Amino acid sequence: MCLFAVLVLANGDLTKTKPNRPQPADVVVWPESTNAVSKVATICYDNNVPMIPFGTGTGLESGVSAPRGGVCLNLTKMDQVLDLHPEDFDVSVQPGVTRNALNSYLRDTGLWFPVDPGADASLCGMAATSASGTNAVRYGTMRENVMNMEVVLPDGTIINTAGKDRRTKKTAAGYNLTNIYVGSEGTLGIITKTTLRLYGIPETIMAAVCSFPSVQAAVDTTVMTMQSGIPIARIEFLDDVMMDACNKFGGLDYPVAPTLFLEFHGSEKNVADQAEAVAEIAQMNEGSDFQMASDPAQRKKLWSARHNAWYAGLALKPGSKGCATDVCVPISRLPEVIVETKEDISKSSLIGPIVGHVGDGNFHSLLIIDPDDPAQIEEAHVLHERMARRALAVGGTCTGEHGIGLGKRHLLREEMGEGTFNVMKALKHALDPKNIMNPEKVIPV
Amino acid sequence: MCLFAVLVLANGDLTKTKPNRPQPADVVVWPESTNAVSKVATICYDNNVPMIPFGTGTGLESGVSAPRGGVCLNLTKMDQVLDLHPEDFDVSVQPGVTRNALNSYLRDTGLWFPVDPGADASLCGMAATSASGTNAVRYGTMRENVMNMEVVLPDGTIINTAGKDRRTKKTAAGYNLTNIYVGSEGTLGIITKTTLRLYGIPETIMAAVCSFPSVQAAVDTTVMTMQSGIPIARIEFLDDVMMDACNKFGGLDYPVAPTLFLEFHGSEKNVADQAEAVAEIAQMNEGSDFQMASDPAQRKKLWSARHNAWYAGLALKPGSKGCATDVCVPISRLPEVIVETKEDISKSSLIGPIVGHVGDGNFHSLLIIDPDDPAQIEEAHVLHERMARRALAVGGTCTGEHGIGLGKRHLLREEMGEGTFNVMKALKHALDPKNIMNPEKVIPV
Repeated sequence: MCLFAVLVLANGDLTKTKPNRPQPADVVVWPESTNAVSKVATICYDNNVPMIPFGTGTGLESGVSAPRGGVCLNLTKMDQVLDLHPEDFDVSVQPGVTRNALNSYLRDTGLWFPVDPGADASLCGMAATSASGTNAVRYGTMRENVMNMEVVLPDGTIINTAGKDRRTKKTAAGYNLTNIYVGSEGTLGIITKTTLRLYGIPETIMAAVCSFPSVQAAVDTTVMTMQSGIPIARIEFLDDVMMDACNKFGGLDYPVAPTLFLEFHGSEKNVADQAEAVAEIAQMNEGSDFQMASDPAQRKKLWSARHNAWYAGLALKPGSKGCATDVCVPISRLPEVIVETKEDISKSSLIGPIVGHVGDGNFHSLLIIDPDDPAQIEEAHVLHERMARRALAVGGTCTGEHGIGLGKRHLLREEMGEGTFNVMKALKHALDPKNIMNPEKVIPV
Repeated sequence: MCLFAVLVLANGDLTKTKPNRPQPADVVVWPESTNAVSKVATICYDNNVPMIPFGTGTGLESGVSAPRGGVCLNLTKMDQVLDLHPEDFDVSVQPGVTRNALNSYLRDTGLWFPVDPGADASLCGMAATSASGTNAVRYGTMRENVMNMEVVLPDGTIINTAGKDRRTKKTAAGYNLTNIYVGSEGTLGIITKTTLRLYGIPETIMAAVCSFPSVQAAVDTTVMTMQSGIPIARIEFLDDVMMDACNKFGGLDYPVAPTLFLEFHGSEKNVADQAEAVAEIAQMNEGSDFQMASDPAQRKKLWSARHNAWYAGLALKPGSKGCATDVCVPISRLPEVIVETKEDISKSSLIGPIVGHVGDGNFHSLLIIDPDDPAQIEEAHVLHERMARRALAVGGTCTGEHGIGLGKRHLLREEMGEGTFNVMKALKHALDPKNIMNPEKVIPV
């Protein structure tokens, strides 16, 4: 069985009136090499059997569900870090290597990989789903940080998206296949190696927390910070509902108000300058005084509310599950979309604390539901669709970082329009002509 | 006739023993709207007529040549800047808008678009060719700076690669079509609008020049600067041959030695800190004292050698043409590849001054040739192929920023390997089934 632990319900499950565990594959295999993956693919291709790649199963959009059965390729045994080039700031990893495992491996090199979706996800899985998270505002998403990938095509052919062993900072050589497979959610091939950009571990990291009288004030502070060109590393928004949950969960006493959690990376001097500049901006927007920390233990404590936010949200109703929504809008439209979403949730019977990677215009509401109550599931579904369409109406997207999976296929179609959707379909057909790669996901054929 | 002025020979021309002007199309049309482009495409599609999009014709790889005749779509009359959103740092432009035209338009907003390939190219053309240039080390290439594109498909269908009017900083919605069309060199569709990321104009810009006893010392300074995480905006390398040419061309008296031209962007304090840090690194590598300037006129003077480098190179032999080569390698391999390339050129009868965007591992040799001498053309061709293969041998690419066009198709195949090349072919076939979009370029079908 190819099941996995999830703290939140995948949105795909909301298309049904009763939530289900993800549908299992018929068979799970644990290949230990790219050649083994290729052999499995060849057999599946010859026999028209669906394949579902599995990294860590931490995705939120039913990416590893197997609605048409088939073979789940559990890639956790391919767990080697390969070809570290510290002088060039790049490394290659197999799909069993997680984010934390890579950063542990790199500890003595002074380098790190910053993309951080929260979960300790497989890096190849993060590439497959175009993951991002809290550091993306400074370091970019997987799209900007994958240099090359080894991919096993549905028929078993092994390719390297930028050519074998190529690892240049830039290239103009032919079609950008790397960025076709980044974000393809396993529907075009199986990623068996990813070459990643690395960064120097910052000399100093400073964390700060600041609360605000309104959502608008917090977001205005974010917008002005971005406009000032301050290279802030993280700027995370928690709404009053989430802050209340965090206080209760962690025995904290933060004001129950819209709050920004900030992090600055750089030299000691540079970090102090950045913090001072943002503190000034926050004051202009009636923010509280900054609580700051640069000592690792104190930083951890200061950010514990943010780090535990999902758990704190779920703890509001013991036994509940959460539906993780995920929209992204142009930053100037963020206050109105968050405020309207909060109003919409407050009119429902559900609680929906909000966290946002506001520097990117991306936010999530965690809709807390009783998994045995069809009415609540339906209510979450309706709120979630309205939230997505609210984002679409202002030039936004129905997914900033979680992907399409099963539950957002109709929203993808609305977001793209028929012509663009058809190009995606043509692409899927060209690269997976038998429709056996993670079928039903992203683009139903 | 769809001809254009070129200062250098396109590499496509080197596949012949005698250089030719680019082959003209049969017809040139000047559409004034996306709908007009769509109508032209529909007619061409119905009649199997090739289409060649034309922006400014400043590309270096024969992108606007028409080896199979057909219709050239000259897009210069579609020259409107559309939908500026200063608060979101984005703007949309039609294909007639050049880089300088956009930056003039933006002057009073405090914003700019930094990608700078040298020529005053069409921004949609820059998207089509995945252009980059001197600022890419800090701001990225077109790949990182295009948010959305309107594209007319070969059959006349109008799509928006990220959905109509979408302009989010990030998205995980479906296949990344934007980055398929960025760098597609007109072979998949006609770009009729591009939405770009903008940046705040830096408060202070400081320029600096520093010469070194060896290529290794100059590149080591670059590598150490990058490793230190200094957010340098430009770091350009000119070799001794190019410095000699610049001195002669501009009446300058720089040391005839490997030289770095640097630029720092930020607050006054921050820029001074960056310059100080790099000066220290340069000293460790036996670099000369920095010549520095922050006043615009003085900066321009200091950088004039770099800005005029191509002209200075060509002036070494009046009446000559230049063959612009373009490779990119992992930065740690840069010294050996540059040194070997210099040795190779020095053994030939040609002069080949070198400039490099060394922070990205990208460099060019401008091989100076007599366009009427087949032996020199052949010699340049051989040097150019060896240079590309030298890059390929160390994990590099045959093109960092100029693209594939006509002259590098065989190198693309070597670089990618057969499997990857076949995926590119499948993509071309899926999106241009009649092979009428800029045929023969990139992927010969």
